[in-house]
Amino acid sequence: MAKTTLTISSKNYSSWSLRGWLLAKFSGLEFEEVITAPDDASARAEILLLSSSILVPCLRHEGATIWDTLAIAEYLNEVMPDAGLLPADRIRRAHCRSICGEIHSGFTTLRASLPVNLKGHFPGFKIWSRAQADIDRVCTIWRECLAESGGPFLFGERTMADAMYAPVVTRFMTYDVKLDPALAAYAKTIMAMSEMQEWIEAAMAEPADIEELEVEY
Amino acid sequence: MAKTTLTISSKNYSSWSLRGWLLAKFSGLEFEEVITAPDDASARAEILLLSSSILVPCLRHEGATIWDTLAIAEYLNEVMPDAGLLPADRIRRAHCRSICGEIHSGFTTLRASLPVNLKGHFPGFKIWSRAQADIDRVCTIWRECLAESGGPFLFGERTMADAMYAPVVTRFMTYDVKLDPALAAYAKTIMAMSEMQEWIEAAMAEPADIEELEVEY
Repeated sequence: MAKTTLTISSKNYSSWSLRGWLLAKFSGLEFEEVITAPDDASARAEILLLSSSILVPCLRHEGATIWDTLAIAEYLNEVMPDAGLLPADRIRRAHCRSICGEIHSGFTTLRASLPVNLKGHFPGFKIWSRAQADIDRVCTIWRECLAESGGPFLFGERTMADAMYAPVVTRFMTYDVKLDPALAAYAKTIMAMSEMQEWIEAAMAEPADIEELEVEY
Repeated sequence: MAKTTLTISSKNYSSWSLRGWLLAKFSGLEFEEVITAPDDASARAEILLLSSSILVPCLRHEGATIWDTLAIAEYLNEVMPDAGLLPADRIRRAHCRSICGEIHSGFTTLRASLPVNLKGHFPGFKIWSRAQADIDRVCTIWRECLAESGGPFLFGERTMADAMYAPVVTRFMTYDVKLDPALAAYAKTIMAMSEMQEWIEAAMAEPADIEELEVEY
């Protein structure tokens, strides 16, 4: 049987890589990381052979190749059903999938104007109004979830939604976005996860030349 | 028990509404349509009460509110497991979810430059190069699926992937995108579905004032 691998790119910049990696970690599935640099022609060729598209993350497991973050989340939920990637309750599961879908397809202004940059910190960063609307919507989503679940994660226990929103938490830290106490506590919970600490440590150690990559929105 | 409803917007312009509606039809779930016009303040207020966000489509079923297209697809797959919204085979199911995820979060240039417009037809429409790259990627996805499954749908039998790509088929028709014979046959299969015919008929009958809505990408 071939090894299980997860292909990712920059740990400092790639929001999708962080999501896929956290999902895999949350699931408990054993996997090896394959790191690709999007500006490296040979790595690009390799990833083209690995997957039907050049997107990251890409999970390869027992003959299956899955290259979209939500597809990876659903796949992991199927093969690791005890990991609790989705809430057990039908209505909360529907809620969880709705907010995962919303962050997967939307929030383009937030992505473009507050790109993930774990090494960066910009106190007093000026946020323009359309990005603020995205931030307000994220805050509404979190507030509703935490009010209903009681925290500390969006649906009480850790689910795929926390992996999907983790890059947003790092954006809020990097760009000094002010949060009310309940949301700040949630952000702190995410940043304190051992998996998050491991990822951030690797991002900080990332070679300088990777910093020149085009930022991925 | 409250009625099951699906909130949608313009049948002529809204690609997300078409996806959600086809998914619900494919599932066999009985539902009532709720049509909202995004520029109508009262409709907007209503939809704000109906859902945690103003997005369409929004499915309400037995206490659950689901407002993202992929979340609706997964929900319908759970409550209507015999509808075959996902392939039965694990590896093909992972493939199906990957291409659904890809169209859900990507192809922004295709969306922006070839907006869904069922009433429109523009022979010889000039397609710029970035949109062509999106078109080429869609064609690769379809070609791989059809080669593996043998058609007539992407995974042989009809799945959620056909609903997710149906608005792309209509774009190709509207903007006169040339397709090779295998892909043209797939496009014809989608356009000939009775559900698609029903949707198009309603789009053609849509009042002219709805045509003035902002196009939804």
